[in-house]
Amino acid sequence: MIRAETIDEARSWAAGHRRAERTIGLVPTMGYLHEGHLSLARRAKSAGHAVAMSIFVNPLQFGPREDYDRYPRDLSRDEGLAERVGVDLLFVPPVEEMYPRPPRVTLKVGSLADRWCGASRPGHFDGVVTVVSKLFHIFRPDEAFFGEKDYQQLRIIEAMVRDLNFSTRVVGCPTVREEDGLAMSSRNRYLTPEQRRRAAALPGALAEARRLCREGHTRADELAEVVRRALSNAGCSVDYVAVVREDDLEPVEKVTGPCRLMAAAVVGETRLIDNVALVPGRGD
Amino acid sequence: MIRAETIDEARSWAAGHRRAERTIGLVPTMGYLHEGHLSLARRAKSAGHAVAMSIFVNPLQFGPREDYDRYPRDLSRDEGLAERVGVDLLFVPPVEEMYPRPPRVTLKVGSLADRWCGASRPGHFDGVVTVVSKLFHIFRPDEAFFGEKDYQQLRIIEAMVRDLNFSTRVVGCPTVREEDGLAMSSRNRYLTPEQRRRAAALPGALAEARRLCREGHTRADELAEVVRRALSNAGCSVDYVAVVREDDLEPVEKVTGPCRLMAAAVVGETRLIDNVALVPGRGD
Repeated sequence: MIRAETIDEARSWAAGHRRAERTIGLVPTMGYLHEGHLSLARRAKSAGHAVAMSIFVNPLQFGPREDYDRYPRDLSRDEGLAERVGVDLLFVPPVEEMYPRPPRVTLKVGSLADRWCGASRPGHFDGVVTVVSKLFHIFRPDEAFFGEKDYQQLRIIEAMVRDLNFSTRVVGCPTVREEDGLAMSSRNRYLTPEQRRRAAALPGALAEARRLCREGHTRADELAEVVRRALSNAGCSVDYVAVVREDDLEPVEKVTGPCRLMAAAVVGETRLIDNVALVPGRGD
Repeated sequence: MIRAETIDEARSWAAGHRRAERTIGLVPTMGYLHEGHLSLARRAKSAGHAVAMSIFVNPLQFGPREDYDRYPRDLSRDEGLAERVGVDLLFVPPVEEMYPRPPRVTLKVGSLADRWCGASRPGHFDGVVTVVSKLFHIFRPDEAFFGEKDYQQLRIIEAMVRDLNFSTRVVGCPTVREEDGLAMSSRNRYLTPEQRRRAAALPGALAEARRLCREGHTRADELAEVVRRALSNAGCSVDYVAVVREDDLEPVEKVTGPCRLMAAAVVGETRLIDNVALVPGRGD
């Protein structure tokens, strides 16, 4: 595995593979790797790509009162994990390499970022698409791999690719979960053992609502209420619970087509997000 | 010369040339071609590129009270001119091809767009960089050619390339002028013969200030005043006159290094812009 810290190294690695007619798969991460990230790299690998993984805690996507400074980092552990799953190039640029100056031109997400996670994290998705566009320009990947856990992010990156005519294909990959259902996240390490137990209420409630929907309970308010109640019973405070259309994240009243149940909850100081696909049952 | 109306055609034309190891030069325009545009195409041609010229009147860069609807268009004349200077592919997408829906992710220019032309045209440069990024993604040009007449635009596109890590090289080309000095612009056709005569005061005043600067008059306010006075004597109303550093367009008090004298004036209903490089003389 090659380790690159500069954009020039990353670019010439990618150019070399393109010259050799190999396709390139990119797995953008903020590091502190877990099984979720590794599943993306394995998926890229099994698609036959030369696989680049980036590890970059992007300051642009953190709000002033968010956890940029304390976001967990463990590069030497990450290197071992990345190498083991077959990553070919690990791109670990310092902040000054990615932002030698405050960027004068950035990307901006419209109304897709007004709701859900965007509502409590103003500017977050603008920072995400800006750094992803930079990575896409550096690597020109044939495919880029993102987890469904960050569902709004996935949809926004797909919108970016389509609306700005990037030629990269965005591949959304299933959320990887702990044994008790908690979606893997680098932020899970913020949780105390007691908070960790309470956090399991989030995937539990989503799974329960998904089951109810399959059984014919397709009213969005009813399903959302199930999740809210479970979260509050577990002592988690609710940021949002929403039933939305998969394509544009607009809220629905009733699950008739492909929908997502999305939720964000705060446990202690830690904000957790998760979502599940809803498949409507035979009707009420 | 090939004429392409769809993004797919443009993309595969570019991909074909890349496979054949030819470099690609892109000349983005809004059409109604004049010698300025043609000089860009010739420059691209002489650099040995396969040359694509786009003609697209980009609605995103026009304000609600601006001239989008009446912007001059003459595609059959443009085709003849483009072919004559050796353009290989003319890309003339309909609006629905470039914007099948309102874009959900766009590009945004920060403080570089707050001043000068940006101050009287809010959102204009955001529209410019958004469409230029789309064209860059479609063609992946090795070089893209822009006129220095739109100096702030040129600098903003350079900033976009640098800050977002595009691999296209931006080539700024000298302003082409009419016999009396007026910078070529598709908007010149809005001028009545009488307005056309008055408009010549703009390049005349810039040339005069440039001469004064060379002679040692390096105070910005003095040079700007010369331009303002000449414009108002000719019955043109002044939008702005500014002496700025070439690299970041910040105003200076005195011309010591590479500077630009930029101005915008309104003649009748028509807004005209122009600029010249200032070379400091031996001092006052």
